[in-house]
Amino acid sequence: MYEHLKQAVCEANRMLGRAGLAPLTWGNASGVDRAGGVAAIKPSGVGYADLEPAHMTVVDLDGARVEGALNPSSDTPTHLVLYRAFEGIGGIVHTHSPYATMFAQACREIPCLGTTHADVFRGPVPLTRGLRAGEIESDYERGTGRAIAERFANLDPAAVPGVLVAHHGPFTWGVSAAAAVENAVALEAIARMAWGTLRLAPDTAPVDPALLEKHYTRKHGARAYYGQRNEEPLSE
Amino acid sequence: MYEHLKQAVCEANRMLGRAGLAPLTWGNASGVDRAGGVAAIKPSGVGYADLEPAHMTVVDLDGARVEGALNPSSDTPTHLVLYRAFEGIGGIVHTHSPYATMFAQACREIPCLGTTHADVFRGPVPLTRGLRAGEIESDYERGTGRAIAERFANLDPAAVPGVLVAHHGPFTWGVSAAAAVENAVALEAIARMAWGTLRLAPDTAPVDPALLEKHYTRKHGARAYYGQRNEEPLSE
Amino acid sequence: MYEHLKQAVCEANRMLGRAGLAPLTWGNASGVDRAGGVAAIKPSGVGYADLEPAHMTVVDLDGARVEGALNPSSDTPTHLVLYRAFEGIGGIVHTHSPYATMFAQACREIPCLGTTHADVFRGPVPLTRGLRAGEIESDYERGTGRAIAERFANLDPAAVPGVLVAHHGPFTWGVSAAAAVENAVALEAIARMAWGTLRLAPDTAPVDPALLEKHYTRKHGARAYYGQRNEEPLSE
Amino acid sequence: MYEHLKQAVCEANRMLGRAGLAPLTWGNASGVDRAGGVAAIKPSGVGYADLEPAHMTVVDLDGARVEGALNPSSDTPTHLVLYRAFEGIGGIVHTHSPYATMFAQACREIPCLGTTHADVFRGPVPLTRGLRAGEIESDYERGTGRAIAERFANLDPAAVPGVLVAHHGPFTWGVSAAAAVENAVALEAIARMAWGTLRLAPDTAPVDPALLEKHYTRKHGARAYYGQRNEEPLSE
Repeated sequence: MYEHLKQAVCEANRMLGRAGLAPLTWGNASGVDRAGGVAAIKPSGVGYADLEPAHMTVVDLDGARVEGALNPSSDTPTHLVLYRAFEGIGGIVHTHSPYATMFAQACREIPCLGTTHADVFRGPVPLTRGLRAGEIESDYERGTGRAIAERFANLDPAAVPGVLVAHHGPFTWGVSAAAAVENAVALEAIARMAWGTLRLAPDTAPVDPALLEKHYTRKHGARAYYGQRNEEPLSE
Repeated sequence: MYEHLKQAVCEANRMLGRAGLAPLTWGNASGVDRAGGVAAIKPSGVGYADLEPAHMTVVDLDGARVEGALNPSSDTPTHLVLYRAFEGIGGIVHTHSPYATMFAQACREIPCLGTTHADVFRGPVPLTRGLRAGEIESDYERGTGRAIAERFANLDPAAVPGVLVAHHGPFTWGVSAAAAVENAVALEAIARMAWGTLRLAPDTAPVDPALLEKHYTRKHGARAYYGQRNEEPLSE
Repeated sequence: MYEHLKQAVCEANRMLGRAGLAPLTWGNASGVDRAGGVAAIKPSGVGYADLEPAHMTVVDLDGARVEGALNPSSDTPTHLVLYRAFEGIGGIVHTHSPYATMFAQACREIPCLGTTHADVFRGPVPLTRGLRAGEIESDYERGTGRAIAERFANLDPAAVPGVLVAHHGPFTWGVSAAAAVENAVALEAIARMAWGTLRLAPDTAPVDPALLEKHYTRKHGARAYYGQRNEEPLSE
Repeated sequence: MYEHLKQAVCEANRMLGRAGLAPLTWGNASGVDRAGGVAAIKPSGVGYADLEPAHMTVVDLDGARVEGALNPSSDTPTHLVLYRAFEGIGGIVHTHSPYATMFAQACREIPCLGTTHADVFRGPVPLTRGLRAGEIESDYERGTGRAIAERFANLDPAAVPGVLVAHHGPFTWGVSAAAAVENAVALEAIARMAWGTLRLAPDTAPVDPALLEKHYTRKHGARAYYGQRNEEPLSE
């Protein structure tokens, strides 16, 4: 069962490995089947290159294992909190990609310094608060998910498809596991450019909100005119 | 029709992908056929690896589609303004290459700090002014092209084959789409070196104009003595 | 004899080459056979790509050659001091990987600035003292090993699987040569993130000890729940 | 004629391309045949991947072409001055590798900050003076060579196998064209580490001369004990 989901999640994890965002086994992608009430996720601590769909672990949204012989990613409870909190998303990715992690470690959100950022995030990349001692010691991964959801109390996860967890690293999401990987790639590129811009000119101000809106809405929403209107234009 | 142009533009876009200057689909190359009054450009939002000549979109210089089933790059109006303003150019490339984009985001032109720069640009890499709110909201891509052309009022686009668009990123051009890709590669390397030089010695002054002239004219113009005098020396 | 050991050490050296941590021939991996009282190590000054198990040099723990036609790495005496001092380790790696070497050259330990670090090192990555003139001039490589062992007088090498040698570069270790290579990859990633975090926010404090403990013990020790409980989960 | 030399120089140029030190066509390698009184060098402005030995240009030490249909590198006069000034060298490489070029552009020599540097250079990487206007305008490439030779008035080119030309970039040399490429790779790695060390700790002092001597003489000279005593240890 869930073959289509396991195949999509497997391919997203392999993309993550090929994109160079996850040295060793430091990253994971998942996808959700809303109708079935289950998510598929990478097994914990295994490499990307040899992953097959059958290796994916399927859990229900309470975390009970439904399919798969391997232990799911230790970050699974974080993913499940986010699937419950953000109803519109279909996939989640966690990495320790270097530049995004530098901002997370420095406890700085990423300001929108240019159109590359505005094409993907409708505003700064937000930062969570640090977890309290009790949250760290008990139910840590679920606490991480809750801190993300709390940070999005007044943010739209569809327009801000990622976050920096303080002292830790980035999570991104999207309509599918593949879209979440693309947002992880985009976030790392955005973080790298922001990092380097701030070295060159530490006082660089965020871009004009009109420019941010223009670029975001060129690519997203009812007035978008970027891209093709079908998903696989080259296979027509 | 326009097979030769579509093939050249397709190959330039594939070069752009292989050069690593355009993660995801963040870049485009075009070429112009001056006699035919048309330009060919990458379709919007599609990857580089699978591009075929038949996927290229051909438009006239007013932007009307002449050939091709796919939507052209959303940056097409910028390219067309430049083809009209800069009569000697044959190809244009837009990327979000990281170091060039850092200077664009910091709103700094790139000073000529060494011979690598002088081999390609006869002076600093210029920066456009930011667009006004009205330009952003209405006819944004054409406005971007106009701001570039305005910046070149007193500059020779043949001698300064690229620009940084404020808050956005670089455009480069050349006698062909392939030459524009080479200038995109060169600009990114120059930007990276300038960025790092300024970290090491923030007060580094531009090079002696005599050195700039020497290096530029070694490679360009009537007295050039760099390279071979035919285009494909190894196939003789 | 020692075929299994030579094969494991050969493969670890080839991993080191593929990981890009050792330009030219600037790095070496070794492994120990505690029962046999011997270590196998890369031959000195040869490239990684063509290494075969038969090229490995086997020495006893006093450094006498037991097998192999080629001179062992000039760093062999350092490795042997560490195998004697740290009884639980099975493999050692030395590199000049760039970011770890920057901290070593600057004589700075690497503070624990995030969970990526805490997943691998239970505390800062320590720095040795510089060697004294007499130690440099006589028995230098053994002196390097002794300075590392001295630095670990009050540290557990199982929980802190690497060190920066002042003015020089990193050594890492693990339960096997392959585990030592993984720790070399992890150390370089951690060093790069710390380096970049300190550029963004020079006063970044180390993470809360509770967060460090949580991440370290998620992956290591009796309460670990990261990964699978068998070594090769995908081959079942 | 000179087949062995042309083959060695061709292979060195291809190594340069594969090492990623020379984007586009920004670098060249040459080798000298002292008995024959000729040097072979890369042709000007052509790519690395398709180079064949027959493409190499052979010139005498006055620069007159002896063999080859293609124009030699425009930097040929610089190479020839160095072959005359430094009698012990067999090959020369010029690149615009990014970190070495940053130091050249900033007009800073590279101090010896660690053992990686000391393994290759017996002291700082020196910097030439800038050329005077007359030298730039007339016989520029020969003037570059003379400025390098002048800088080595009191230095041993065998112990300091490279230099930074002010405002320009690095030249390296060695006993063969291949050795000069290895030194170009080493110089770029050393420059990158020095650049990053100085960001972390701007006041880092050069290493103790005893450590510099120890590392240099481990690898070079009569007391060297690094490496194997024959050139191709793995083919025995």
